[in-house]
Amino acid sequence: MKIFSSVNDVADVQKLVSQAISLKKKPFVDEQLGKHKTLGLIFLNPSLRTRLSTQKAAMNLGMQVIVMNLDKEGWALETRDGVIMNGSTVEHIREAAGVMGQYCDIIGFRSFPSLVNRDEDYAETIFNKFVKFSGVPVVSLESATRHPLQSLADLITIEELKKTAKPRVVLTWAPHVKPLPQAVANSFAEWMNRADYDFVITHPQGYDLAPEFVGDAIVTNNQDEALAGADFVYVKNWSSYNDYGKVLTDGEGWAITNEKLKLTNNAGVMHCLPVRRGLELSHEVLDGPNSLVLNQANNRVWAAQAVLKNMLEGLSLT
Amino acid sequence: MKIFSSVNDVADVQKLVSQAISLKKKPFVDEQLGKHKTLGLIFLNPSLRTRLSTQKAAMNLGMQVIVMNLDKEGWALETRDGVIMNGSTVEHIREAAGVMGQYCDIIGFRSFPSLVNRDEDYAETIFNKFVKFSGVPVVSLESATRHPLQSLADLITIEELKKTAKPRVVLTWAPHVKPLPQAVANSFAEWMNRADYDFVITHPQGYDLAPEFVGDAIVTNNQDEALAGADFVYVKNWSSYNDYGKVLTDGEGWAITNEKLKLTNNAGVMHCLPVRRGLELSHEVLDGPNSLVLNQANNRVWAAQAVLKNMLEGLSLT
Amino acid sequence: MKIFSSVNDVADVQKLVSQAISLKKKPFVDEQLGKHKTLGLIFLNPSLRTRLSTQKAAMNLGMQVIVMNLDKEGWALETRDGVIMNGSTVEHIREAAGVMGQYCDIIGFRSFPSLVNRDEDYAETIFNKFVKFSGVPVVSLESATRHPLQSLADLITIEELKKTAKPRVVLTWAPHVKPLPQAVANSFAEWMNRADYDFVITHPQGYDLAPEFVGDAIVTNNQDEALAGADFVYVKNWSSYNDYGKVLTDGEGWAITNEKLKLTNNAGVMHCLPVRRGLELSHEVLDGPNSLVLNQANNRVWAAQAVLKNMLEGLSLT
Repeated sequence: MKIFSSVNDVADVQKLVSQAISLKKKPFVDEQLGKHKTLGLIFLNPSLRTRLSTQKAAMNLGMQVIVMNLDKEGWALETRDGVIMNGSTVEHIREAAGVMGQYCDIIGFRSFPSLVNRDEDYAETIFNKFVKFSGVPVVSLESATRHPLQSLADLITIEELKKTAKPRVVLTWAPHVKPLPQAVANSFAEWMNRADYDFVITHPQGYDLAPEFVGDAIVTNNQDEALAGADFVYVKNWSSYNDYGKVLTDGEGWAITNEKLKLTNNAGVMHCLPVRRGLELSHEVLDGPNSLVLNQANNRVWAAQAVLKNMLEGLSLT
Repeated sequence: MKIFSSVNDVADVQKLVSQAISLKKKPFVDEQLGKHKTLGLIFLNPSLRTRLSTQKAAMNLGMQVIVMNLDKEGWALETRDGVIMNGSTVEHIREAAGVMGQYCDIIGFRSFPSLVNRDEDYAETIFNKFVKFSGVPVVSLESATRHPLQSLADLITIEELKKTAKPRVVLTWAPHVKPLPQAVANSFAEWMNRADYDFVITHPQGYDLAPEFVGDAIVTNNQDEALAGADFVYVKNWSSYNDYGKVLTDGEGWAITNEKLKLTNNAGVMHCLPVRRGLELSHEVLDGPNSLVLNQANNRVWAAQAVLKNMLEGLSLT
Repeated sequence: MKIFSSVNDVADVQKLVSQAISLKKKPFVDEQLGKHKTLGLIFLNPSLRTRLSTQKAAMNLGMQVIVMNLDKEGWALETRDGVIMNGSTVEHIREAAGVMGQYCDIIGFRSFPSLVNRDEDYAETIFNKFVKFSGVPVVSLESATRHPLQSLADLITIEELKKTAKPRVVLTWAPHVKPLPQAVANSFAEWMNRADYDFVITHPQGYDLAPEFVGDAIVTNNQDEALAGADFVYVKNWSSYNDYGKVLTDGEGWAITNEKLKLTNNAGVMHCLPVRRGLELSHEVLDGPNSLVLNQANNRVWAAQAVLKNMLEGLSLT
């Protein structure tokens, strides 16, 4: 594996999930694999779970880890080609990526979307430039349109806890006060479409995800209908794709509460975190027995470790 | 040991001091103990000594260390229960602590007081919530009312250097330009009360510490009287406890100078650092032979290492 | 080696270069040397290459590394002697350095010049205070007037790639929008003067470097003349030394382009990075076959590793 940015980079998703679950049981079996290998974790945006879980995964594999919050510890990157850099950007992504590739065997890279220019965001311009100019294998730590380590952890969580071969999995939009990326929702949809689940997406009018991510999912604006019989409910806000980056509604009535849970098949409730309590999800649900949010967070380690393991094995082959 | 937040968490203080002094002589004897164990160091406020010394202590024990300056690298935490999070706080301490507990075997946590709401500060609301929701052993890296790793290092320093079984130890208030927490003073008093010393506290009127910390100490507003015959003088500013968080005086005449030192029994001069030169302590004292501030800073490593060693041994038992 | 702040700290430059090139081939031969040794990397200014490459070098040597961005994670340092610290500076460099010396076996320290007070900057007041009060070996990660790890990496790069025993090496000033330190240019000149090269410096009028750095170099304000027959062209902006810290010209015509390269002996083009594309150097040069900027960045690791290796060997002797 030379890149991990989407489910499309994974040849055998079930095998990757199995490897992750296996590493969860024996975290240190591969600690010789990463010896003398350096992972760089480069953030252009803040991170809690992603940074900690990926750092831990790499250390479990015996890797050296260098963390760089480029937005805070470094300086503004120029990402446009051909410009005269006489403004506030200090370094071009070509050099920044190229330099980091000199120091790291594998790089994890996070860059959020602008939510202004949809074409650029959805072309993954910045992420792809980073990959190209770094010259080493790159793991997405969340890009403009996807958050694959999160989605893999989500899939692991469902696989561990599902009670039927083909559970009903519902992705529901939830209210928020700020315009958020579509990345987590896109990515979750992309991975659920690959799994053989009964997959449903529900959101208010105007919040349709891009068709390439919706795939074969059933889509409805009727949340109650979607929740009926759900085994897993994934709660997440996103801003509009069509009216790009906009918040179209305060989303009253869309928060997931115990009342709503009654519609489901005693569903496990998932969220990638951070979550706005009382707004996206009620306190009672988050503090109740159906919440799987800490399971998901825990599985971030094993998701990252399985991906890094595959990348390290790829390095050994060359 | 499952928590280290106060002297009250320590069953045998003398034993802990002995362990620390022993580790100082042989720092790497336990480097297998921390193998495959992760320490998270979570800061909601800046740190120099605490971060570096605790990180070093953990590495000496063979631990993996993850440092997170949550105030700078992360986002604002919500700490109130039951609120609708539609403002500027991005994540609740319940999830933040819970998630970190998924990734760390032991967590060090720093959170300063508000200096606004005394009841909340003195109930250690934030620290206690973090402990509760993290679900793993927690070391205080300074909380609203205490700084126990500092106090343990201070005790080690006195034990190493005392010339009599029961030295006279004086905690004196010193001037500052900003309102500072009472944590270091409280904590020092708490630990000195546990040691069998002649313990005296001196400060201007209005700066009495909370009674539970003063304990059996002799308290006087007459600094000269307090200093007479002192073997150790601990210099520290704190804001008022009674008129909570307020600066009541510019403290003229309270700085410790060579002139003042003449009143003492050639006392060792202590300060937790950072120190305001020329304001709390004269340059001549800090640069002179009586200053113990670097000894204290050095002992921060062994204090942290002794505490972490005990926690790691506790983990192995479970 | 107890200090690495200038070429003058190196007894045998050729030997140091050889050691670096040898470590590049076998990075892990000395990984027992740094066992149980801690390197502190202390930054008062931002860093990308220096931080990552030095961290990696130290890890290759088996050292524990603690990184501290004191400007962001810590607080403002007081560097003046004898002042009453009743303003915004929180800690004096005497204590800060002294404390870090308690925790680290070797310290790397970065502090940029004020570009306001030339005497203070060129006396290396802050760097020298840090060295004095830390009490341990110190590596400059760029000080007010020099960037020796960069210069050593530059020398390694030229030694690796030179086709004649005595190549023509040209240091040329380039345009920039901000007043930059003279450190990289000074330092490069200092190291080139030590090497037995044909060394030429070219810049617009008013940009003369300090005489102690110019040394035996040929200096000309005619860039074309300087470039003629050059084997290596080092491109770098600096602000005026004589009209201290000032930008005197927009430097039109001084950028290095393919057109300019035609004047040279198919020269390798060097820059310490970060580089302002289109301003200092044309995109075509940076993206073309003559660019050595990534070679230089890569050699930062081996430069740092050779220096740290020498310092560690020095520690073992004591």
